[in-house]
Amino acid sequence: MRKMIPVKDVNVTDAFWRDRMELVREVVIPYQEEILNDRVEGQEPSHAIRNFRIAAGLEDGEYYGMVFQDSDVAKWLEAAAYSLAVYPDPDLEARVDEVIAVIAKAQQSDGYLNTYYTVKEPGKRWTNLREHHELYCAGHMIEAAVAYYEAVGKRQLLDVMCRMADHIDSQFGPEEDKRQGYPGHEEIELALVKLYRVTGEKRYLQLADYFVRQRGQQPHYFEEEARQRGEKDITLTHGLWDHSYTQSHLPVLEQTTAEGHAVRAVYLYSGMVDVAMETASDDLLETCRTLWQNVTKQRMFITGGIGSQGYGEAFTVDYDLPNDTAYTETCAAIGLVFWAKRMLQVDLHGSYGDVMERALFNNVLSGISWDGRRFFYVNPLEVRPDVAAYRQDHRHVETERQGWFGCACCPPNVARLLASLGQYIYTQNDEEVSVDLFVGSEARFTVQNEVVQLRQETQYPWDGTVRLQLQLDEPLAFQLAVRIPSWCRRPELAINGELVELPKVTEKGYACLRRSWSDGDTVELQLPMQPERVYAHPAVSENAGRTALMRGPVVYCLEEVDNGSQLRDVQCPLDAAIAEETGIGDWPQAIALTFDGFRTRFPANALYAMGQLELEAVPVKAVPYFLWGNRQPGEMLVWLRQG
Amino acid sequence: MRKMIPVKDVNVTDAFWRDRMELVREVVIPYQEEILNDRVEGQEPSHAIRNFRIAAGLEDGEYYGMVFQDSDVAKWLEAAAYSLAVYPDPDLEARVDEVIAVIAKAQQSDGYLNTYYTVKEPGKRWTNLREHHELYCAGHMIEAAVAYYEAVGKRQLLDVMCRMADHIDSQFGPEEDKRQGYPGHEEIELALVKLYRVTGEKRYLQLADYFVRQRGQQPHYFEEEARQRGEKDITLTHGLWDHSYTQSHLPVLEQTTAEGHAVRAVYLYSGMVDVAMETASDDLLETCRTLWQNVTKQRMFITGGIGSQGYGEAFTVDYDLPNDTAYTETCAAIGLVFWAKRMLQVDLHGSYGDVMERALFNNVLSGISWDGRRFFYVNPLEVRPDVAAYRQDHRHVETERQGWFGCACCPPNVARLLASLGQYIYTQNDEEVSVDLFVGSEARFTVQNEVVQLRQETQYPWDGTVRLQLQLDEPLAFQLAVRIPSWCRRPELAINGELVELPKVTEKGYACLRRSWSDGDTVELQLPMQPERVYAHPAVSENAGRTALMRGPVVYCLEEVDNGSQLRDVQCPLDAAIAEETGIGDWPQAIALTFDGFRTRFPANALYAMGQLELEAVPVKAVPYFLWGNRQPGEMLVWLRQG
Repeated sequence: MRKMIPVKDVNVTDAFWRDRMELVREVVIPYQEEILNDRVEGQEPSHAIRNFRIAAGLEDGEYYGMVFQDSDVAKWLEAAAYSLAVYPDPDLEARVDEVIAVIAKAQQSDGYLNTYYTVKEPGKRWTNLREHHELYCAGHMIEAAVAYYEAVGKRQLLDVMCRMADHIDSQFGPEEDKRQGYPGHEEIELALVKLYRVTGEKRYLQLADYFVRQRGQQPHYFEEEARQRGEKDITLTHGLWDHSYTQSHLPVLEQTTAEGHAVRAVYLYSGMVDVAMETASDDLLETCRTLWQNVTKQRMFITGGIGSQGYGEAFTVDYDLPNDTAYTETCAAIGLVFWAKRMLQVDLHGSYGDVMERALFNNVLSGISWDGRRFFYVNPLEVRPDVAAYRQDHRHVETERQGWFGCACCPPNVARLLASLGQYIYTQNDEEVSVDLFVGSEARFTVQNEVVQLRQETQYPWDGTVRLQLQLDEPLAFQLAVRIPSWCRRPELAINGELVELPKVTEKGYACLRRSWSDGDTVELQLPMQPERVYAHPAVSENAGRTALMRGPVVYCLEEVDNGSQLRDVQCPLDAAIAEETGIGDWPQAIALTFDGFRTRFPANALYAMGQLELEAVPVKAVPYFLWGNRQPGEMLVWLRQG
Repeated sequence: MRKMIPVKDVNVTDAFWRDRMELVREVVIPYQEEILNDRVEGQEPSHAIRNFRIAAGLEDGEYYGMVFQDSDVAKWLEAAAYSLAVYPDPDLEARVDEVIAVIAKAQQSDGYLNTYYTVKEPGKRWTNLREHHELYCAGHMIEAAVAYYEAVGKRQLLDVMCRMADHIDSQFGPEEDKRQGYPGHEEIELALVKLYRVTGEKRYLQLADYFVRQRGQQPHYFEEEARQRGEKDITLTHGLWDHSYTQSHLPVLEQTTAEGHAVRAVYLYSGMVDVAMETASDDLLETCRTLWQNVTKQRMFITGGIGSQGYGEAFTVDYDLPNDTAYTETCAAIGLVFWAKRMLQVDLHGSYGDVMERALFNNVLSGISWDGRRFFYVNPLEVRPDVAAYRQDHRHVETERQGWFGCACCPPNVARLLASLGQYIYTQNDEEVSVDLFVGSEARFTVQNEVVQLRQETQYPWDGTVRLQLQLDEPLAFQLAVRIPSWCRRPELAINGELVELPKVTEKGYACLRRSWSDGDTVELQLPMQPERVYAHPAVSENAGRTALMRGPVVYCLEEVDNGSQLRDVQCPLDAAIAEETGIGDWPQAIALTFDGFRTRFPANALYAMGQLELEAVPVKAVPYFLWGNRQPGEMLVWLRQG
């Protein structure tokens, strides 16, 4: 097992990501603060802070919002904490402390904390774990508490959440006088492991383990509680509320395919890995490895998106990856990053880093507009605005990024991921440091009680040169493992200018460089990037006869603003030379791909025509998927017709 | 204007269709009679006859079924009537008379006839024209009454329905003391014109004209009646119940695109043509011509199917023709046949005959299994059973034909169309007889007071040779117009063995043969059939890079039983020779198409792969779309990947 690096130990200096992270700090976090305080005109009211003030007795009023409105405050706090870990900001810290003081006041005398049940349904706590989100909200607030404690060392929120965790522990467990339940929306599992790690309190780990292993056991808890609520249809064996929606259709150890709500699924799997790491549970790890294969080899879009249908925001069946009706929620791709990173802590395997990178550079980044003010909740791989506006099966598709959402889970989730990006770049233990992502940064590790500093420089994702330089007081023997991305055909690696025979040192997608490292040692990695045609497995019927363009980890797409409409007709010939063009609109560094393609000439006034059709040569321009929708509304398409 | 030929004046002798029609007579009509009487075990109860018996006071009980359950009896009666017109069957006629006697008893003293409102909601007549189906049911029963009167000369049902029509006329119209309403589901418009034609009663025509022209006027009747029912949301400007669902979003003369529920739309358009023909109304005809262009040039599947989405069973937007989620209800294709035939009565134009033929040989025939016992309600152009079983946007898709339906509109509609096929083959007036469909038959016309008999012989759709022979007492000058199908590249036509220069005599898709015809004159038409690749307009994004195979009017598809699964991967190379193979399973005359195709070889254990993929040669077999699903369940695909 290897650990993540705390956010405060990694200074992200990367040209590409630094810009996104500063946006989070300067635009998104303040904007979200305004939203949470209902100070943004023309946007859906949030009421989230006000719910806490009402619960704290500081204000009169009624609860408003989704049953999980508290978690919006938690995600904002967590993002703010990560930001403060790297960029001290006394004003922000003071405002955070104010919010935390309100939260502390909203906590009940027995430790319970949830504004929905405190304000709106007092006396009904823990009566609907399946649909309501008490444990989910607690999980997010625990994550915020841990992040804030680690960022600035203040314990108030951590203490509040320990009391809440103690309260939850008094309510749930195998003992007869407790509830044998678990959350409908997973999240608290991974949060409790974080709380265990920072406090050392074993009960939190045991509770996480209980929540994970109790899930899906018979008699089914969600049926029991539905019976107690007096509901008629307690088995819910139909439609959305099939137990697979909450991954409780089977005990987790019996699950072999990813089912149900995609965000919930990857949050569960992340928690399973966390529990497994801390309890040395091979059974949970084996299950996670099986599920990983299923997700990434049968149920993942090329963008790292997961969740094939809007109904239930869910996985469907193997190889069912519809481009235009995909759900591929931003939060689900973020959850996939969480899970991938945890798998990487267990097994040093390039697949985890590759998927993490794929999700980050595509489905995660597409979730936020370049100016940081607008967001995609769903991220389909094809958009036809006229069809999306009309067809009911496209109802969940937004053809343009929106300012905020009534159900505002994605924007703060993007913020907290970007603000904490530093912790996803490296992994380490006492014998090894691995470079999992190529992000310019300065990181500090403790290896065998010695401080090791590592500087990474790169122009990724536009250029594949990565330069690593070590800084140590004394020479030290350890393994530096550098991920060799699977998209790269001819990688090269040199230590202090001397080429290494990569095939000899590469294991499972990592170049494993074990030696005595000295101060100033450099590792230079060349990952030549070129436009690549990528094909999907023939069972992915949506993509038969179609090709996607990638360059490095970046998936490309066509937009109407560059290529006109009816994009599915645009043909990319097998022999077309694909050129690179630097500069797209307001992004001078961005690289577009261009080629000579074709469109079909079709007889006038016909819907169907016999015989061979003539082709018309057209210039075609593809742009990174994560940049789409930042210029003009219109059609967008990832999978191009192979000419 | 030209008229349809009464069913009893055309004896269908065709090898292909005769078999289907005998099936209707021997299997479908008796089976439906059993269903209507609730004598088939394991099928959804119909209760339709019992509803009439209860309304007639012959039985105690409660109403059961859809609000339009009466129409199932009407459609069965109409089918039985057409059958009796050609095949006298005293037993069947006696049973029909029994049913009619019950219907007559169920009629109220003021002429009102509808079992739902008589039994279940007395006192609420005409309070919900938008959603309930009183006028629709009346329309179907009028059609049955006219058909039965024309078939066997008995007036009882006709008299019943004249009294009902009189009653409706007393309730609806522009006068202040009447309701200014019209049906939510069109049907009565075309039925009233039929009733006018057989009775000569002008009021029926005027009422049909009123229903057509009142539709969509402001103030909106459906809003007014919703207000009177005390409903809050009377404008229904959202979702399913937008007024376009019922084609009442605009006055009909202002409509330029086909909107809403597809069956309703084509029933309306058929009624509009009927009214226009009898009232010489160019405005209605012009509207119908505009709508025809929109439907057949922008919104029709290659199978003649219409209705692009399950939600609302409706048209969507131009060129949106999704193959797997298409609704393409059997009834909608039948309605398209009705409309096409009526357009043909107005304008002799091959487009109408071509579309009628396309719908008949594809989307209509696919609605009924070869053994006549199972039915498709929806007829998508692609089926993947695993996806259809799981995805919510495929919920309306049946991957196998079903025995009957809770909402059983399609099976009896197929029955009445097939039983009356004779009337769709020819059209005539005093100067002209046109051959619109190629169906072996013996027909009798009266032209200029002379009896003209025409015998048509053909092995259509397997062979394109059509032989016409005239029988007359004296030579007679008139125009024989023979449709030259647009799918035929090199048609030839000979009169008494002498080739005619077709381009010289062909106008708008018809060979117009004006001469003095004598007894024994023959016209031989050669319509060479060959496998053809057909392409869709590039705006039909679903079909970009794909080709459909046709032979004559028949659309082909791949089935899993012949080709394995993952059919979208199967490539049809541009240069592949497509061969014909006679005999498919139990159908020795049927012609399959075969070619050497390719499938993709893909790296093991990968979901995405870079670079060019290898191909594997595979033999491919395509079968007529109308035959699919008669052997084994599995995948089906019409639009093939172009290799």
